[in-house]
Amino acid sequence: MANETFRAVAKSIGGMKVSCTSRNFEFILDEPENLGGSNEGMNPVEALLSSLGACKVIVARSFAKAHDIKLKDIRVELEGTLDPDGFMGKNKAAKIGFSAIVSKFYIEADNTDEEISDFVAFIDRTCPVADTIKNAPTTKTEIHKI
Amino acid sequence: MANETFRAVAKSIGGMKVSCTSRNFEFILDEPENLGGSNEGMNPVEALLSSLGACKVIVARSFAKAHDIKLKDIRVELEGTLDPDGFMGKNKAAKIGFSAIVSKFYIEADNTDEEISDFVAFIDRTCPVADTIKNAPTTKTEIHKI
Repeated sequence: MANETFRAVAKSIGGMKVSCTSRNFEFILDEPENLGGSNEGMNPVEALLSSLGACKVIVARSFAKAHDIKLKDIRVELEGTLDPDGFMGKNKAAKIGFSAIVSKFYIEADNTDEEISDFVAFIDRTCPVADTIKNAPTTKTEIHKI
Repeated sequence: MANETFRAVAKSIGGMKVSCTSRNFEFILDEPENLGGSNEGMNPVEALLSSLGACKVIVARSFAKAHDIKLKDIRVELEGTLDPDGFMGKNKAAKIGFSAIVSKFYIEADNTDEEISDFVAFIDRTCPVADTIKNAPTTKTEIHKI
């Protein structure tokens, strides 16, 4: 075992805007104006889809050579289905988060359809963000007053 | 039911770098140099933690008034435990994604400890990103050649 700890900080910076930092990197998340935000960034569920897609792209780039995939280009388009009535408390039966996520791989590679299909299956089972969503980690919450 | 579809695109833009876009917003994810990247952005698992923390902050801001929480300031610090030997294929027993996530709330509010504790429990169960991780959505993969 060689556990590593990854860290991020999400800090409220006015209205619905949140500064997200990890190491020396930052991006801003926000909500659209119709959800009370100032629309200065994508929202958290869009950022979740982004992290999932980026993780799949990076796994593809990292392992293509070892799998004899002559990968020229790749993008992943994500679609997540969510019923806002759930977290808004309007419908107790509605799931709070995504009920479904579709990953559409667009791949350019000098390989057969079967080779590409096998490689995509490998990506899906080797992607840390996908595994975190598929196989829930343990979670713990701490509260500190400031 | 009022399902909405949220979308994002993760596009490889050279090396391990990925352009993540949703609506008219973009951020870059990458890997550190020791993992073959050019270290121009946080990595996908750090972005996942960021989206989780931001979602909790936004739920807090959205529902504080309705819960009589006089919220002055909030940030959430996330720690995720992951064994890279899993996705590197070095240890078949290691979980691929996060095995544990800790959310540390730092809250300034004119409320009692119990009121704040109840509110944080509400946030944790009402956060769409947290629910997506805790209760896995169905997933589907499509492959398109370009």
